[in-house]
Amino acid sequence: MKRNILKITPLGGLGEVGRNCMVYEYGENILVVDSGLMFPENDMLGVDYIIPDFTYLVQNRSKVRGIIITHGHEDHTGALPHLLAEVQAPIYSTPLTQGMLEVKLAKHGLAQKADLRTVHAGETINIGPFKVHLFHVCHSIPDGVGLGIETPAGMIIHSSDYKFDHTPVDGWPSDYARLAELSRGGVLALLADSTNAERPGWTPSEKVVDAALNRVFDRAPGRIIIASFASLISRMQQVAAVAESHGRKLAFVGTSMQDNVKIARKLGYLKFPDSLVVSIEQALNLPPAEVAIMVTGSQGEPTSILGRLSTTRNRLFDVVPGDTIVLSSHPIPGNEENVYRTINRLFALGADVIYEAIAPVHVSGHASQEEMKLLLHLTRPQFVVPVHGELRHLKQHALLAQQVGVPAENIAVIENGQSIEFVDGAMKLGGRVPTPYVFVDSSGVAGISEDVMREREKLSQDGVVMVGVVVDRFTGRMMQTPNIRIFGFSANGETDAITAGIQKRVEGVLQRSGSGSPERDMEKDISTYLYSETHRRPVVFVSFNKV
Amino acid sequence: MKRNILKITPLGGLGEVGRNCMVYEYGENILVVDSGLMFPENDMLGVDYIIPDFTYLVQNRSKVRGIIITHGHEDHTGALPHLLAEVQAPIYSTPLTQGMLEVKLAKHGLAQKADLRTVHAGETINIGPFKVHLFHVCHSIPDGVGLGIETPAGMIIHSSDYKFDHTPVDGWPSDYARLAELSRGGVLALLADSTNAERPGWTPSEKVVDAALNRVFDRAPGRIIIASFASLISRMQQVAAVAESHGRKLAFVGTSMQDNVKIARKLGYLKFPDSLVVSIEQALNLPPAEVAIMVTGSQGEPTSILGRLSTTRNRLFDVVPGDTIVLSSHPIPGNEENVYRTINRLFALGADVIYEAIAPVHVSGHASQEEMKLLLHLTRPQFVVPVHGELRHLKQHALLAQQVGVPAENIAVIENGQSIEFVDGAMKLGGRVPTPYVFVDSSGVAGISEDVMREREKLSQDGVVMVGVVVDRFTGRMMQTPNIRIFGFSANGETDAITAGIQKRVEGVLQRSGSGSPERDMEKDISTYLYSETHRRPVVFVSFNKV
Repeated sequence: MKRNILKITPLGGLGEVGRNCMVYEYGENILVVDSGLMFPENDMLGVDYIIPDFTYLVQNRSKVRGIIITHGHEDHTGALPHLLAEVQAPIYSTPLTQGMLEVKLAKHGLAQKADLRTVHAGETINIGPFKVHLFHVCHSIPDGVGLGIETPAGMIIHSSDYKFDHTPVDGWPSDYARLAELSRGGVLALLADSTNAERPGWTPSEKVVDAALNRVFDRAPGRIIIASFASLISRMQQVAAVAESHGRKLAFVGTSMQDNVKIARKLGYLKFPDSLVVSIEQALNLPPAEVAIMVTGSQGEPTSILGRLSTTRNRLFDVVPGDTIVLSSHPIPGNEENVYRTINRLFALGADVIYEAIAPVHVSGHASQEEMKLLLHLTRPQFVVPVHGELRHLKQHALLAQQVGVPAENIAVIENGQSIEFVDGAMKLGGRVPTPYVFVDSSGVAGISEDVMREREKLSQDGVVMVGVVVDRFTGRMMQTPNIRIFGFSANGETDAITAGIQKRVEGVLQRSGSGSPERDMEKDISTYLYSETHRRPVVFVSFNKV
Repeated sequence: MKRNILKITPLGGLGEVGRNCMVYEYGENILVVDSGLMFPENDMLGVDYIIPDFTYLVQNRSKVRGIIITHGHEDHTGALPHLLAEVQAPIYSTPLTQGMLEVKLAKHGLAQKADLRTVHAGETINIGPFKVHLFHVCHSIPDGVGLGIETPAGMIIHSSDYKFDHTPVDGWPSDYARLAELSRGGVLALLADSTNAERPGWTPSEKVVDAALNRVFDRAPGRIIIASFASLISRMQQVAAVAESHGRKLAFVGTSMQDNVKIARKLGYLKFPDSLVVSIEQALNLPPAEVAIMVTGSQGEPTSILGRLSTTRNRLFDVVPGDTIVLSSHPIPGNEENVYRTINRLFALGADVIYEAIAPVHVSGHASQEEMKLLLHLTRPQFVVPVHGELRHLKQHALLAQQVGVPAENIAVIENGQSIEFVDGAMKLGGRVPTPYVFVDSSGVAGISEDVMREREKLSQDGVVMVGVVVDRFTGRMMQTPNIRIFGFSANGETDAITAGIQKRVEGVLQRSGSGSPERDMEKDISTYLYSETHRRPVVFVSFNKV
């Protein structure tokens, strides 16, 4: 690679570009920004989460000079343990982000190994040839930063997830001044968040949530249970304030939420008196009108606290009539069904349920169209690369950039793995690295291929039928009735008839002479038979033994 | 049952109440309103669709005096073939609805058997003790009706799916006057559509879609491909009009869409000149800028035309750069992931994609909050029973009814199977009939239970491992290496080691004396072994034969 080329490659992102990992490369130097995970889609069976394919970084591990984590959300941090297993480099992050990383890395036994370095918004750090200026951005977690990456090729602005909130919960707005300052010398390229590119206007301030929560607290007759993301620190601050002003004690339930509360309080990102907080056990002994409880499960995850409450399988307490439940969240695409099912179940238990569709108890943490245009005006980039979104979002972001005057040919809508190169002030498409999904389940990263998932899909459609056949090698006859096992397959209540039918097919194959593979022939015949009888196509396996 | 009781029982509706079937009962007389199907949720594996449990109607089949189908959508018509297999009664519907029913029934070989009777909005029909006044309602399909059901207990208004559109495509607004007239003598109860109860304001008129389509046609450089529901007749009319005004020919692709076009044109619900329509083959031979194509697949269904176009598996033509694709639809809850994936794929093929989030190319067919209040004011019911929605929608609808002055105790939010009874001007909860889901797949209605589905879910998580073991009954030793089959299970690339490990567990069980069920012991041991090696829990089956 020529020395004067700046190369940028987005890695990973399930249908999204560069959200989880971006690679900046100049000469023999690589800067990695973020290392996050993705949640599987509904048809990715048996997958817990997905990480970017880090092969490119592994192949170039000697070049990696540093890793910057922009904020503490899972889609920017969750794959860091996997990356660190392969690549060693200093990890730069702000105090809250680092606190959350420490917990995560400790769980993977990497607490000692990782070289974590604290940085602060407003600071500048040198990483190889990159001079990185950190600027504060508002998002749905405190202490997030965007990056002004000064490279020999020019200045790159990497927004990461942001919104322009004039009245954020922590009183710390996005740093317009610093952005303008960084842009003074000219911005080569802007790589900016496209999440809400379809949304007109300006994302409401976190402040509106205060008013909505106040209304809930004003009228709730009994307990108030608020579900949110465990990482939504500012929401916790808001709930704490309104609980305090309404004379309610506050309990946090759920390990991840408790972990985050602990770190955020310790580091000063969450501020409320000790006297406000009670354990869940204490909360349950207080009068219902004096209690608020924050729980996980705002996405309707069946094993979360809220999920278990909705199906009356929670360990410590149940939902009762008189409870008011707030889902302070927005369904992640693909989760809508789960979320609405959970809401319906909670209503059925007699609770009053308040959620985004009926009250502004949640706002987005991402910029809408007018904010995206503001960022374009503040930075006046020569080139624009929409990132952090699905292709449809990137396309809309590109249209917005054109609307504010960026020529179409200066905008690159790219997919993961497609690098772009900047040389002598020009932008062009560079090489492409493969970016397959890496599926992670309880076994780790190895093993789950697309093929395995297709097999699971097949099993999930009509189940499986297994037949054990033992044949006398001299007579060629069955020595016993076939062993037939059915699982996930419905014989429409005619199991006996179907069993007899299968046996007949087995005998049929045995009687036909000269078959090279009686096992396969039986499987084929049984499949045909089952389809003709039931119009279903279970997976059929025959264990054929000649003894 | 006492003669002077009016009993109303909602049957069926997946998480929704009474959408698919409502039963009105007075003395020995039953009137059935609608017989629709539901689409399965993402975790209902291998299910094509779901129908209401008709047991209650089967048990009371001699009482059924008539079936009214309010409009031609699948969620109101799709289970009719299943109901007619059990219950005989005249079926009343308006001309377009009946035309669509005839096609459906013919496919089930029921064309001759069904006693279809044509009725028209504005007419009154006598069905047993029920005097049913049909009034026209606007919805996303023409010729829909709501019902004023005059019963000895009082007047019931059954809205079915409706909106108050002042400028509908067919120029035929909902019949306010008739509604007011029916209400003059007092309305005992209103049973009304709750679909959009969370949506403030007034649902936009179909008219706004005209403007959006015009903008698309004004600027599209190549072919225009519009995906919509096959039953969205009014959208077809709109597309036809704008195609004609822009000098484009129009082709319809997809059997269900072609069927509906044929009926709707024959009956006069779709009006355009023959010269406008071309076959898809003809369309493909015309210059791209002179063609519009309507296709099915607006929900991103993988096997639909649009789904196949997005994955380049369509038979007759492919998407090419320059194509403009319009999704004139709203994702059904649970389908969001499929729809957005389809949009992203179409963008990736180089098409310009226009969809609801970025342009008003679709409007809802259901009333929003202000319309729901208008209906309440027009009918001034003594009692309100919110129907046609999930519990969360019914709850919001109940709040709206309270806002316009209906006392809370006069509003009944009920679940499917829960009957309500009206006697001497009072409303009370009646008996409850069980309403399990009846799952339908390619095999028909029999057989798919919740248990079978749980088994499929288990298979879909970590796959299956099957082991065939043959043992000498005298020596107790294996006569052959076990037959091991793996499907949907990942051994993390260590298949040989795992196979050897399984064999060892089998031998271990054989060596331990006195086991009552070596089969079960082996399954248990192998499961434990596989979990310890891979942290996965496949379904394990052993076929154990002693010979």
